[in-house]
Amino acid sequence: MTPFKLTDELLVDIRQLIADKNNVTLRSMMKEFHYADVAEIADELNVEEATYLIKLLDSEKTSDILAEMDEDMRESVLNNLSAAEIAGELEELDTDDAADIVSELPKEIVQDVIAKIEDREHAKDIVDLLRYDEDTAGGLMAKELVKVNENWNVLTCVKEMRSQAENVTRVHSIYVVDDEDKLKGRLSLKDLLTTSTTTHIKDVYIPKVDSVNVNEKGEEVAKIMSKYDLEAIPVVDEIGRLVGRITIDDIVDVIREEADKDYQLAAGISQDVEADDSIWELTRARLPWLILGLFGGLGAAAIMDGFEEMIAKHAILFFFTPLIAAMAGNVGVQSSAIIVQGLANDDLKGSIGNRLVKEMLLALLNGVILAILLMIATWLWKGNFNTALAISLSLVAVIVVAGIIGTFIPLFLNQRGIDPAIATGPFITTSNDIFGILIYFFIAKSILGI
Amino acid sequence: MTPFKLTDELLVDIRQLIADKNNVTLRSMMKEFHYADVAEIADELNVEEATYLIKLLDSEKTSDILAEMDEDMRESVLNNLSAAEIAGELEELDTDDAADIVSELPKEIVQDVIAKIEDREHAKDIVDLLRYDEDTAGGLMAKELVKVNENWNVLTCVKEMRSQAENVTRVHSIYVVDDEDKLKGRLSLKDLLTTSTTTHIKDVYIPKVDSVNVNEKGEEVAKIMSKYDLEAIPVVDEIGRLVGRITIDDIVDVIREEADKDYQLAAGISQDVEADDSIWELTRARLPWLILGLFGGLGAAAIMDGFEEMIAKHAILFFFTPLIAAMAGNVGVQSSAIIVQGLANDDLKGSIGNRLVKEMLLALLNGVILAILLMIATWLWKGNFNTALAISLSLVAVIVVAGIIGTFIPLFLNQRGIDPAIATGPFITTSNDIFGILIYFFIAKSILGI
Repeated sequence: MTPFKLTDELLVDIRQLIADKNNVTLRSMMKEFHYADVAEIADELNVEEATYLIKLLDSEKTSDILAEMDEDMRESVLNNLSAAEIAGELEELDTDDAADIVSELPKEIVQDVIAKIEDREHAKDIVDLLRYDEDTAGGLMAKELVKVNENWNVLTCVKEMRSQAENVTRVHSIYVVDDEDKLKGRLSLKDLLTTSTTTHIKDVYIPKVDSVNVNEKGEEVAKIMSKYDLEAIPVVDEIGRLVGRITIDDIVDVIREEADKDYQLAAGISQDVEADDSIWELTRARLPWLILGLFGGLGAAAIMDGFEEMIAKHAILFFFTPLIAAMAGNVGVQSSAIIVQGLANDDLKGSIGNRLVKEMLLALLNGVILAILLMIATWLWKGNFNTALAISLSLVAVIVVAGIIGTFIPLFLNQRGIDPAIATGPFITTSNDIFGILIYFFIAKSILGI
Repeated sequence: MTPFKLTDELLVDIRQLIADKNNVTLRSMMKEFHYADVAEIADELNVEEATYLIKLLDSEKTSDILAEMDEDMRESVLNNLSAAEIAGELEELDTDDAADIVSELPKEIVQDVIAKIEDREHAKDIVDLLRYDEDTAGGLMAKELVKVNENWNVLTCVKEMRSQAENVTRVHSIYVVDDEDKLKGRLSLKDLLTTSTTTHIKDVYIPKVDSVNVNEKGEEVAKIMSKYDLEAIPVVDEIGRLVGRITIDDIVDVIREEADKDYQLAAGISQDVEADDSIWELTRARLPWLILGLFGGLGAAAIMDGFEEMIAKHAILFFFTPLIAAMAGNVGVQSSAIIVQGLANDDLKGSIGNRLVKEMLLALLNGVILAILLMIATWLWKGNFNTALAISLSLVAVIVVAGIIGTFIPLFLNQRGIDPAIATGPFITTSNDIFGILIYFFIAKSILGI
């Protein structure tokens, strides 16, 4: 397989074909591409071109293209479609993708679009899904699944399954429910085929089945599915009724998004943005953290102002403030990142006290090594042993405190139910800058005795 | 489903049962747990206890437990098992998991272990997999798959499939090969069941099938599978022969590891470490970046030393160096993170030149807003308009340069085939600290005219 690669030439060709309204060539060209690739192409066109392309192709394919497209572009294209056209697209999609699209539509047209979906059962399922928060199991699940009643016999079951399976792209499991629709277990296809047709389902099903509650967080569902290597998991409501199914491909997206979010927070970007977003959107995501940094810097300046009397005799102390701030920041980010990752992967065992003691020892070890290097460098450079000693000893103290703060803050936030990932990046660097410089001048002052 | 939660009490109970050699209770207790949960328990025991547990249970379950366990713990436990016992575990595992375990064994026992695997076909498959780099499709794939020859008729095909499927946990697709074992396409189960038994496979198979080359990078395979929502993908060798199959659960692990690695690099941690690793391992992962930061700080100190003559009249300039360094660092990390993420997700379009212009405008916008805030704060604080102006104007310049460096370096590294993720974190902060302070003093000096 040669993977699809969207080149500039290809894009120019496609734009020309659209400008020429060369529908025959366009249709046959797009037929060769996977819908995910057409979505990639559409994302690079302007709204009019993308709309033209979507209107040109069959809704069987365009529904999948729309589902894969970039959210902003999809919204713009849908704005150019009539309620009936949108309904036609939704008709072709699985309920989870359809619900995602409906939730992005302007409020005033939603009712109209839903009313125009011909398959009323499908429309009902989509509406059902709309009430769940997108970050929960309910927001991730689809209504498409294969379920059988425990009181049926194998013959009825096979007949029912056949009709249900038509709407389900991939059958991972056959779920067994009771008369009240409560999830009882699952059925293996093999058992079903090797059992007499008059046997009742309740005598052959496997009563052990993993499931998640409809209100479970998406992140938690991802952990469960990847820990237990599940390709699909049934979703039950508060009283145990089977309401949907989540498949692993949706979970892959959750994992990616979660990782992207943590990464951005660590880098000081507070909203989900991409390199191709507008300057305004990028500014809104980045500026708040920079303003935080600005106030941190003003705090550091105020501290140094308070130690101004030392500048005459020990100007060199002031030359090392960026070094002290950088080390405090780096150590803080390192320790917090390890904790945040440990929390995310659920492999942090033991008490907070033990963590802090370990981080203190670790910071002490690193601090002493770094202090020796700094001591030698400064002594060679300035030839003043006392100053070199004062700076180096302060560095050890600063690093230990920075490590403890970096370990403590994410653990504390997590205990309070706040996402610990916000503790990484600028938040920790800024607070450590200030603490670091304060500690540094205090220790230096007491050693140099001014 | 109440998710399994390993509590301290449970762990104490299990340890007591092991100490008491209460095998009956232990066995029945472990029977209730999923193997992934037992692996979680084993990771928290000491090596002797974990070995005891593994030796106690059936190899059908322990093989899966071993495959899920933490690498370090697994190695220690395997050290306590005989070659025959290890072979027994490998016998039960899929070839990909078995090969992963074999690759961790001490060289001197590998041959002995392989020789003791009874199923010679299975042993051969494991040995085959050993020669692939773990980060490639070959390193990820398993040998277990269902394949049929295009020249068979449906009857032969169904018979062959039945015996092959016994070794395959989950059949995602039936792959069709020619007499030379070259991948030709796939077969739908439905078509197979609805076609006359004498029909030849070559007349019914679907010739379109996605596949990856055995040398393809794991990261690339992950992109393809998640883009096209594939649950399994066949792997072919250089001349197109079907050699294995990768399933989505392995890809989920690749995605997680990749995200963890990028996150750690951004935080200045250079090896794959966890919070529970030893202080020594953590130091090796963290210290190099801190030493880099140390040299950066020394560089900054040297620059300030060069501007020492300004200290008498404009001490305040020196108070703002941590602020300047912090802003340069933060902006650099923000811009590089967005680029690294764009590259990782393959959604960076357009030329480097355009990116740089955009980042420059963005940095200018942010810089001006921040400079105005800083200007007001400094002016109110010190009442000196010229100094406030000099500091604020320098800040704008520093931010613009930091943004450009943060954008350029990852793009440059990527073009050179180097992982751009190393450009985030301490690398970019340190270089931006130095550049920032240099620019700051130059501009301040020329404005204040000293």
